[in-house]
Amino acid sequence: MFKSQINECEDVLLSMKLIVNQLNDVIQKLNEDDIKDMLQKILDAKRIFVMGAGRSGLVGKAFAMRLMHLGFTVYVVGETTTPAVKEEDVVIAISGSGETRSISNLGKIVKDIGSTLITVTSKNNSTLGQLADTSVILPSKTKTDQDHDPDSGGDLEKNMRGDYTRNLPPLGTSFEITALVFLDSIIAQLISLTGASEAELKSRHTNVE
Amino acid sequence: MFKSQINECEDVLLSMKLIVNQLNDVIQKLNEDDIKDMLQKILDAKRIFVMGAGRSGLVGKAFAMRLMHLGFTVYVVGETTTPAVKEEDVVIAISGSGETRSISNLGKIVKDIGSTLITVTSKNNSTLGQLADTSVILPSKTKTDQDHDPDSGGDLEKNMRGDYTRNLPPLGTSFEITALVFLDSIIAQLISLTGASEAELKSRHTNVE
Amino acid sequence: MFKSQINECEDVLLSMKLIVNQLNDVIQKLNEDDIKDMLQKILDAKRIFVMGAGRSGLVGKAFAMRLMHLGFTVYVVGETTTPAVKEEDVVIAISGSGETRSISNLGKIVKDIGSTLITVTSKNNSTLGQLADTSVILPSKTKTDQDHDPDSGGDLEKNMRGDYTRNLPPLGTSFEITALVFLDSIIAQLISLTGASEAELKSRHTNVE
Amino acid sequence: MFKSQINECEDVLLSMKLIVNQLNDVIQKLNEDDIKDMLQKILDAKRIFVMGAGRSGLVGKAFAMRLMHLGFTVYVVGETTTPAVKEEDVVIAISGSGETRSISNLGKIVKDIGSTLITVTSKNNSTLGQLADTSVILPSKTKTDQDHDPDSGGDLEKNMRGDYTRNLPPLGTSFEITALVFLDSIIAQLISLTGASEAELKSRHTNVE
Repeated sequence: MFKSQINECEDVLLSMKLIVNQLNDVIQKLNEDDIKDMLQKILDAKRIFVMGAGRSGLVGKAFAMRLMHLGFTVYVVGETTTPAVKEEDVVIAISGSGETRSISNLGKIVKDIGSTLITVTSKNNSTLGQLADTSVILPSKTKTDQDHDPDSGGDLEKNMRGDYTRNLPPLGTSFEITALVFLDSIIAQLISLTGASEAELKSRHTNVE
Repeated sequence: MFKSQINECEDVLLSMKLIVNQLNDVIQKLNEDDIKDMLQKILDAKRIFVMGAGRSGLVGKAFAMRLMHLGFTVYVVGETTTPAVKEEDVVIAISGSGETRSISNLGKIVKDIGSTLITVTSKNNSTLGQLADTSVILPSKTKTDQDHDPDSGGDLEKNMRGDYTRNLPPLGTSFEITALVFLDSIIAQLISLTGASEAELKSRHTNVE
Repeated sequence: MFKSQINECEDVLLSMKLIVNQLNDVIQKLNEDDIKDMLQKILDAKRIFVMGAGRSGLVGKAFAMRLMHLGFTVYVVGETTTPAVKEEDVVIAISGSGETRSISNLGKIVKDIGSTLITVTSKNNSTLGQLADTSVILPSKTKTDQDHDPDSGGDLEKNMRGDYTRNLPPLGTSFEITALVFLDSIIAQLISLTGASEAELKSRHTNVE
Repeated sequence: MFKSQINECEDVLLSMKLIVNQLNDVIQKLNEDDIKDMLQKILDAKRIFVMGAGRSGLVGKAFAMRLMHLGFTVYVVGETTTPAVKEEDVVIAISGSGETRSISNLGKIVKDIGSTLITVTSKNNSTLGQLADTSVILPSKTKTDQDHDPDSGGDLEKNMRGDYTRNLPPLGTSFEITALVFLDSIIAQLISLTGASEAELKSRHTNVE
């Protein structure tokens, strides 16, 4: 009955609001010391490598592209001309669960090489969280969590959800959006710290597309 | 003086809050008829093609991956086994400015083929906005906008910014995040409309990674 | 002295001739039963997945693209909209050494799923060679072989090389070229077997590029 | 009748022999001055960009990967962290027909920037051939040629083909294989000219895969 009053568009707006609530929730829970540590390691790095699988990998690429615009020497693991990682390099792994097999295997290789590993994840107790020199924890629902995990959102979400059972985006969506928003805000901070202008960024943006 | 009191992390949190404000702003300004039209075209499509350049292309890929999880036949333009587009196909173009040269050229080809073109953009008056059968407008700052465009954010942003001049993420960031949040919410709506369960989605998630 | 008489172009032609010799050598050593078995499995497959790392991955993509042109349902492992592999699927792994860590890990997953695994490799005794239901062996120098491995080319090569120590392309080049030539010839055979016309192939070639 | 005596594997071997014949044919027809010019421009380049569409793009990536192994600063157009092309850069375009729309559009942009453009193509009179500062012509059948174009192979091929009408690989296959063999031989020459050892190449090969 109530259901029939929902036209096909209502869940789009509701989902967007839930995402906004989750973002607000994450902002409250961020550990500032970890973020400062991540910023320091990025600013000190000679070369930065970014890696992630699936949609987390896409978020990693979006971050890597902006680091390039800022003038950093940055590579995406798995792309054509990405060189060997060396001891003095910084590798940033993006993984909601911190357990994605391929990425945690690569995390071990990275630590065997002796490189610095930064993980952006929602799970501190994960393989990648434990391997990393610095972990930034973004508390979010990931694709290995159960449906309707009571910890997957803030109270607001639960209130808003009411009888709705499907309106939160699926699998690791919450993590991936949160990671993109967080990493773009790392970029905002790096712009502030390095004094880069938007004109400088545009000058490095690909002109052959 | 004031500047010296800002530690290196403050702009990360401020930027995240500005992004949240922009998302709230966009939610108010969405045209529900366009969204319903987009949903209808996706549900009626035999095959869906997604395209975008740069970071908008990454957002398009994240959306395409979820459509595949939902059981749609979906391809990313430019990937290895993407077939020829035919008249009965639906092509979704993601472009903040609506003017990215490669994507607007492809948009013209798509319309010459006679396929249905959906554009997700921040500019209705753009080449892609005008070409499309359905345009969803996400009002956001794009990489072709001027620095500190007074229209690029809501009033809250301007109040929060105060003397800060660099704390909003650069170039098309606002659009790309907004597009990801919007498209993931389209997924939430499609899950609701098709009755797909999270278990079904997981069963299609790649198991060879 | 002799060196100074070589102008900068001579090694290009010599290398091309060495590659041609190696190809001739491989043609003599192919096991026709394995090739027929590979063809049968491809023709019987409902869906085909192709995987490889680095340059072998690029060769796999070139093969997958042609399978799509021929009308097969084919995916590249790691691309955006590639679905989960199921028991009834055929997975083709390209690896010169047969030991590339990521690909042999995926080969194990594929066999755990119960899918059919075909390996194209230069080493029958390798992890992937042993895992596979069908292995096609292309005897070639791979990147894990020693410099100037006496088995890496035919006698003609050794005669032609004389004092030259650098004119054979490096690492796994021999394997990758041989694999591309072999897989494109598998395509030629499939065209013959299925009666596909060049016009049909062109009709499936991407028209949005 | 004759057809029924061909078992399913014969065309694989025949196609491989035809490809070898075409390679031998191309080796005879190469213009050494163009090759030396290409080598000189690569050795003098501060940064190299490689581009191509479809299978030619895959060949370009295979070449770019080896240039990276050799220690060159090299990018693939369209990958995540590829920066803007500048006047002092060298761009290498791979296109069989020399007319692929997206690549010839990019070629024009490259020349507008004032960068050096090298084209590897089978058609000197093509858009890209005419735009380029240096064109290396690899005479081969491309996907825009007609079926059984009498100029598409050497005399040997025509003799070998006899009544067979389908045994030559389709579309631009001849060009793509020839381009890979040629570009890997350019690598062999660069190794010779720079004195790079296989050990040095291996040290740059990705160690995170």
